This record gives sequence, structure tokens and C-alpha cells, in this order.
Amino acid sequence: MVFSEIVTKEKISLNDAILLEGLPGVGNVGKLAAMHLIEELNAKKCIEIYSSHFPPQVLIDDEGIVNLVNNELYYYNGKGKERDLLFLVGEYQGIDSPGQYDLCQTIISLVKEIGVTTIYTLGGYGLGKLVPEPRVLGAATSKEVVDSFKKAGVEFVDGEPGAGIVGASGLLLGLGKLQNIQGGCLMGETSGYMVDPKSASVVLKSLQKLLGVNINLSELEERAKQVDSITNQLKDIETNDKEDSPDMNYIG
Amino acid sequence: MVFSEIVTKEKISLNDAILLEGLPGVGNVGKLAAMHLIEELNAKKCIEIYSSHFPPQVLIDDEGIVNLVNNELYYYNGKGKERDLLFLVGEYQGIDSPGQYDLCQTIISLVKEIGVTTIYTLGGYGLGKLVPEPRVLGAATSKEVVDSFKKAGVEFVDGEPGAGIVGASGLLLGLGKLQNIQGGCLMGETSGYMVDPKSASVVLKSLQKLLGVNINLSELEERAKQVDSITNQLKDIETNDKEDSPDMNYIG
Amino acid sequence: MVFSEIVTKEKISLNDAILLEGLPGVGNVGKLAAMHLIEELNAKKCIEIYSSHFPPQVLIDDEGIVNLVNNELYYYNGKGKERDLLFLVGEYQGIDSPGQYDLCQTIISLVKEIGVTTIYTLGGYGLGKLVPEPRVLGAATSKEVVDSFKKAGVEFVDGEPGAGIVGASGLLLGLGKLQNIQGGCLMGETSGYMVDPKSASVVLKSLQKLLGVNINLSELEERAKQVDSITNQLKDIETNDKEDSPDMNYIG
Amino acid sequence: MVFSEIVTKEKISLNDAILLEGLPGVGNVGKLAAMHLIEELNAKKCIEIYSSHFPPQVLIDDEGIVNLVNNELYYYNGKGKERDLLFLVGEYQGIDSPGQYDLCQTIISLVKEIGVTTIYTLGGYGLGKLVPEPRVLGAATSKEVVDSFKKAGVEFVDGEPGAGIVGASGLLLGLGKLQNIQGGCLMGETSGYMVDPKSASVVLKSLQKLLGVNINLSELEERAKQVDSITNQLKDIETNDKEDSPDMNYIG
Repeated sequence: MVFSEIVTKEKISLNDAILLEGLPGVGNVGKLAAMHLIEELNAKKCIEIYSSHFPPQVLIDDEGIVNLVNNELYYYNGKGKERDLLFLVGEYQGIDSPGQYDLCQTIISLVKEIGVTTIYTLGGYGLGKLVPEPRVLGAATSKEVVDSFKKAGVEFVDGEPGAGIVGASGLLLGLGKLQNIQGGCLMGETSGYMVDPKSASVVLKSLQKLLGVNINLSELEERAKQVDSITNQLKDIETNDKEDSPDMNYIG
Repeated sequence: MVFSEIVTKEKISLNDAILLEGLPGVGNVGKLAAMHLIEELNAKKCIEIYSSHFPPQVLIDDEGIVNLVNNELYYYNGKGKERDLLFLVGEYQGIDSPGQYDLCQTIISLVKEIGVTTIYTLGGYGLGKLVPEPRVLGAATSKEVVDSFKKAGVEFVDGEPGAGIVGASGLLLGLGKLQNIQGGCLMGETSGYMVDPKSASVVLKSLQKLLGVNINLSELEERAKQVDSITNQLKDIETNDKEDSPDMNYIG
Repeated sequence: MVFSEIVTKEKISLNDAILLEGLPGVGNVGKLAAMHLIEELNAKKCIEIYSSHFPPQVLIDDEGIVNLVNNELYYYNGKGKERDLLFLVGEYQGIDSPGQYDLCQTIISLVKEIGVTTIYTLGGYGLGKLVPEPRVLGAATSKEVVDSFKKAGVEFVDGEPGAGIVGASGLLLGLGKLQNIQGGCLMGETSGYMVDPKSASVVLKSLQKLLGVNINLSELEERAKQVDSITNQLKDIETNDKEDSPDMNYIG
Repeated sequence: MVFSEIVTKEKISLNDAILLEGLPGVGNVGKLAAMHLIEELNAKKCIEIYSSHFPPQVLIDDEGIVNLVNNELYYYNGKGKERDLLFLVGEYQGIDSPGQYDLCQTIISLVKEIGVTTIYTLGGYGLGKLVPEPRVLGAATSKEVVDSFKKAGVEFVDGEPGAGIVGASGLLLGLGKLQNIQGGCLMGETSGYMVDPKSASVVLKSLQKLLGVNINLSELEERAKQVDSITNQLKDIETNDKEDSPDMNYIG
């Protein structure tokens, strides 16, 4: 009953590689960060994952060509001391709980075979309010990863996120831990109200230190400025509204 | 756990055939178009598909006879240069996402064996407003099909439909593409508020050119006129209401 | 993953038997009718059906003893010209669509082996308003059953029920038809607002004629009178309210 | 498609043991009672149960370490005449109905093999109002267990709980009964509005008598006093509000 198809675009083998998960989530922080990294590192697509755990839907590209909803893996061969990287991205996560488990199990098997030994998941941590200076919060499968994250400026706040981590960012770590794959989650603080390139940018700054790669963040930071500018305009309008009509609350 | 039964009413084999999908959807455009074509071409039922992915329900015909909800295939042997056709119609699509995948996979296997090499799916593209002159939008599995659709007057608008195509009309193409079956979707613009024979009629006009068949559309066009007439009466009433009570908005 | 257990309390074999389904539904008409028949005919329990398609729940009897939610079969050996009967009753139907299909398939296999050749399903037809003189509407798997139902006073109204028959009452007929088991559904008209013994009673009157059994309906009719009495009191109160405050609608 | 993993932390074998279920539920009464018992008896973790029937989620401990959502078994070797105990606890029950069945079946198989012959499930019985002196209500798989519960001060009220017992507390008994495992449920009355240590404490008092163990309840009773104190303050505020503004209802 479950449909699943793994399409191998390029057969690859990596060495002691890190899987970087950047599927859609709060503020799309993880997706933005992973997509930016794929572009900057010029990572190449190697695998497409199709599954009935995704919505029954095709997306249409600019040429009018349909493509079934999927998740995709991109790889990057580390230069010098850099570790090999594998990226997990896509338009959707599994649509229900058993589907999430099934997909994450499939992906872990797949990436282990390719040579992945560590999993970093990237996501947003929604605060429900504007975050002028977002921090990067962490969680990890072991004390060692916690320590390495702390050295990269990732903060660990006791009891946060209180609800744990839901979805692929949590499940890949939890299921990976059961299979002795170490890893951790980098969560950029975000309002959760909109796509948040600033949060993605601070996540990437921590990731740079962790991975020892140098990434040009100017494009993301430019987009972050644009979002900031729009947000500030909205705040100004709101403030002016209040100043111009001081009696409104009294009357209303 | 999954119940599935294929009942073969007539054993058939087609040659380089086109599957035309017309299951219920927005404005029932695809269903209206496919049912009209079945009637005009006098296509014959060959297969019934029963599945626990459909609602647990029987329908009752005019004689009081119950029939389990299903999907059905009708065939038409092309005359002269016409290609053979197979129609997929029914009262329901699969009721959930894994069910949609499972049914579409079953149907693709089934029709491939019968001789289908191309899939055209028919549907409506809901605009959320009245559409006096509906266009036919397209999406396809390959550049070749896009070009053939354009020659038949089908329009490709960059980034539309933005949400892609959900349900059997999308999935049959997406899953078919993974199995090297080419195809495309014809979407008649429609308000989405009601069953729309005018939109079905424009879809059929494009389809005539694609298939090289000649179809009498007078019945559909008659129904389209009736719907137009009712819509106009409703608009008149609405307009008069507004004119007769100019102060309502002021007072209210 | 699917849990299913058939517990045989008494091993039985019937001859050309009729399955009478009376699971919960609109107005609990089918359940009331089947339970009344079981009591009047002193039918005996032979099989318990447990399944993960039922709610994860135990019921507690008057002694404080828990019993897992199930469906049960009761049998009655026909006397003289009477046909053997098997009753399907329970507190719940399957909780989702695939579960309904799975349970009905299981039940059909089970009862065929016991000797069932005909299925009559009993239910209510909700009208959304009080029904002083409920009729019994029918639907069936074949012209022959339609004719036999008509002779028993069952009415066939063109296009009713428009939505067909949902749940076990429909599915047992639809799936049975695919396996060449004939049958039909008897639907007592009911408001659908409350448990309706009057509707159950008219269904049983039709059933008596169909089965050629004589059933004492006095208890059901007594309960029907009580429900009528309460309904009339409620109507009186409502009417008086309106009479005492004649201006309410005018003012409001 | 279903993911399930049993991780054995310590291989154990018990003798004629009792399983005590304390998963989350109404007022978290069962969970509080079981966790208190685990602590007081210094029971040790022996098994972790992972399953795709739990939410796709990791929890984060105080060190920032992620752990996949699971259920856990703790054991206690009875001293002298005490029976061996096995505890079932966790942060979640199965998230849907088939998942509940599947997990409970898995757990019953597992604990039977370890040596469990009796199942006591612990829960809350929500009354929807404050309960100054909560009673412990019972339900059981047999007359014998009912009698033993009554001797321990557990009350059986005819027709309560009217809705039966939903979830693991009911299902473990119902499925266990089908496998000839006896057992019963202890339900502490609770408002259902908040976590209720007082209700957990009265459940444990009954359990002490049933198990013949001596448990220090002072910590739970201290927490119960704190909750009582807060509740009383809230009631005072509410009462004062009403007294200070006697006309509010009149005016409003």
C-alpha cells in the first residue's frame, strides 16, 4: 500500500560525511539555510525520494513541466580538511506521523550506505514575537556534540524548546541515535510569522564554525535587510496609527 | 487490510492509446468533459475498480439497485488516424493521500497493460470569481507535450497553478512520468463555485485538436447557456438589491 | 499492524441463512430492530469479532466487568418454513473508511462459511424533522430483491436516499454483491434527532412479511408511545411559549 | 511501514508479576501514581519501546540531550511476600486507534514473556468539578478481581464510568482478558482540570492494600496540599469578586 521510490541520479560514495537536513518548518529557517549552502558550495543532486507519505501533488516549473512532490539529496565533496556533506531538502515533510517515521528511517538507511556518520538538522525556533537579534539554540544526541556546538556559539537554554523538536529535525536525530549515529539540531530563533533569512543567516554562521567552511552570506543578509525594512515600515504604520488617534481606545 | 478488486467487464487490448482522466474535481470540469466524450464517442465500459480507498458507501440507481462506489474505465477504438482512447471516470477520488497514490499506481499498471502510452488528465482551475471567457491552461511531463498542447491553443502561464496540481490529475502525470509515460493536464478556468459546462466545453475544444476527433459540443454548450442565464439572473437580483437600497451601507 | 480476533463461542452451521445487520446508525433504528428480534426469537450468541478498527475502549457491565468493544453474531434456527437467521450487532461500526471495508470483508467471509446466502441490512433514513408516520424505504442488490421488498410494503422512492447508503448497511450489500450474495436494505424514516423505536417497529413490520416470522412488537410500540408522549410535551411547551409571547418575533 | 523497536537495557525475568500501567491520561493520575511508586520502590528501567505510533518527536533533557519519544518498563523484585512488579510509563500513549491496539498487543506479548500474569491499570476518572474527597473507582476482568478490589476499598458504582475506559488503561485489560490475563483498573476521581496528586495519592492507598507494600506518600500529599492551597486561593478570589460586586449580575 505504501508507495516509495528512490531515484538515483548519480551514484556516489562519501567519507565520514555529515547529513544536513533543511526541510520546510518554522520560518523556513532550515530550508533557507540548506538551500543557501547548496548554492554557495555548488552541491550536486544525487538522489530523489518519492513516497506516498508526501501530498498527492505535482509542482509545475517555469516551463510548464510537472514534477511529483519529493525530497532530494545533494552532495558536496569536502576540500582539504572539510568533511563531505549531504543535503536533505524538499518542498514537504511526511504528512502524518507514521509517514514521518517511515521516511526518516528510509533516509537514515540511505545516507548510512552513502557514508554519512553525523546528522545536523537545521530549523527555526518560533518565539511568537519579533526577534531583533536571533540566537542559535541547540540540542544533540550526546555530550560530545553539545560541547562542540557550544564552542561554535550555539546556546543551550535549560528546558528549551520545552515541547522538544517535532518532525524530521527531531526524528532524524532520535532515530539516528538508536542506530548510533551522532548529531544535533541548530535552531535559529525566529518569530515564526514569516520566512526568516536573518535567522537562517545566524544558523549558517554557527554552521560555518562547526564545518570549518567559509560561506558567503551576503545574499541571505541582503534578504534579511529587506525583510527587516518591511517589518519596520509595518511597525511605523502601526505606531503612527496609534499616535494619530490617541482617543480611539478611550472611545472604543 | 487494503481491499482492492478489479472487475473486468470486457477483456480489451488497445494500441498506443491515450488515457483520459475525468474524475470529480474543481467545477467538475474534468468529469463533465470526459462523460460528454464517452457519450459522444459511444465508448464502452471495460473495467470496474473497487477499493477501500473510496468511501464506504453504495450509490442507489433509479431502479433502487445499490452499487458500490468505484472508478470505471471506458474504451474507444480510434477510427482511421484517431488514436485509441481509454477513459477513467467515477464518483470519487481516493479519500486520503496514501489512497490516492495507491489507486493511481494501480491504475497506471492496469492501463499500461491494456496499451496506454500517454495520459491526459482533465480538470478545472478555480479562480474564485466568475470567468466569462475561460481559457485552457496546461502542464505536462515533457517539453514535447508542452509544445503539442500550445499548438492546440492551450496556454501556459508562468507560475500557474502556483500550488501545482493536487489529486489524480496531478498524480497520474507525476507517477506516470516516473514510469516514462508522457502526458499532460488540461485545466479549464472556472469559478469553482458550481458545476461548469462552459469550462468543460473549452477543454473539449482543445482536446479535439489534440486528438483529431470531431465532437458535437451542442449539448454541453446548451447547458453552459442555462448556467450563464441563471448566473446573470442572480447578478441582476444582486445589482437591483443594491440600487433599491442605496442607504443600507450608510445606515448599517 | 491490524489486530483482528474472531472468538467462536458456539460452532454452528446454518442453511441458506439470512444475515440481519443492526449496527448503530441514524436513530439507532437498525440496532433497535435487530436487538428486539434477537430477544423475541431468543437468538443465541455464537461469535465475537474484535478488531483494531473499533475504538480502543472497554465497556463496563453492571458487575464492574470490562469487555473489549466488539461486534457479535447471534443465530436463530428457523422453524418450519422459516429461514435460518444470523444477526450482526454491536456498540460500534469500524471507525474509519478502510476499517469499514476490512471489517465488512471479514464478516462476509465469516457468514458465507456459516451458510449465509442473503444479507438484509437495517437502518434509519434521517429526514431532519419529526416523522409521525414513518415509511420503510428500500434499496437492494437486484431486481428480484426489489420486487420482494415491494411486496412486503417497502417503498422505493426515485433518487432516495440521494447520498446512497454509508457505512456497514451499504458496504455489506455492495461488497456482498461483488461476491454474488444478494440482499437489500430496509430504512425506517426517522427524524435522526433521537433513538427511534417507532421507526424500528415499522422496519420490523416489513421484515415480518419478508421473513414469514411472527414477532411481538408490543414492547417496541410501548417505547415508541413514550417517545411520542415526550415529543408532544416538548412541542406543547414550545407552542405555549410562542403563544404567551406573541410579540417576540415582531419585536425581535 | 510501521516502525517499532524494543531496546532491552537489562535482561530480566519476573515471577507471577503484576504490570502497573501509568501512562498519561485524565489528571495524569495514573502517571503520577506509577512514577511515585517507581521512585519509592527504586524500580529499575529494563526496556524502552519505540514506535511510529508515538508522535514524531524528540524530548530534550536538562543537558540538551535529545531522546526519541517512547514508553518504558521498570521492574521491582518483590521482597518476602510481595509480588514482582513491572511498571509501564512514558510521555505519550499511541496517537491513534490502530496504534493503541498495536502498542498494547506488543506490550502484552512482551510482559507475558517477562513473567507478568496480572495487569493493573491506573488512571483518573474526570468529574468536571472539584473533588474534595476523591474516591477510587474500579473495573476488572473478572468477579475475583472485583472482589479483591472491593476488599482494598475500591468502589464499584453501577454504570460508571458510563463511557467505559478509553486508551491503554482499558485496552490492556480488554486485550489481556482475551489472552486470559486477569486484571483491573483503579480510577481516582479527579476534576480533570489539572494534574492531580491528591487523586494519585488515594489510588496509591488502594494499591498499597492490593499489593501489600508500604509506600511513603508524604511527597505526593505535600504536592496535593500545594495544589489544594492554590485552588482555595483561586476560589477565594472568585468569591470575593462576587461579594465586592453584588450588582454585576443585575446590571449585566
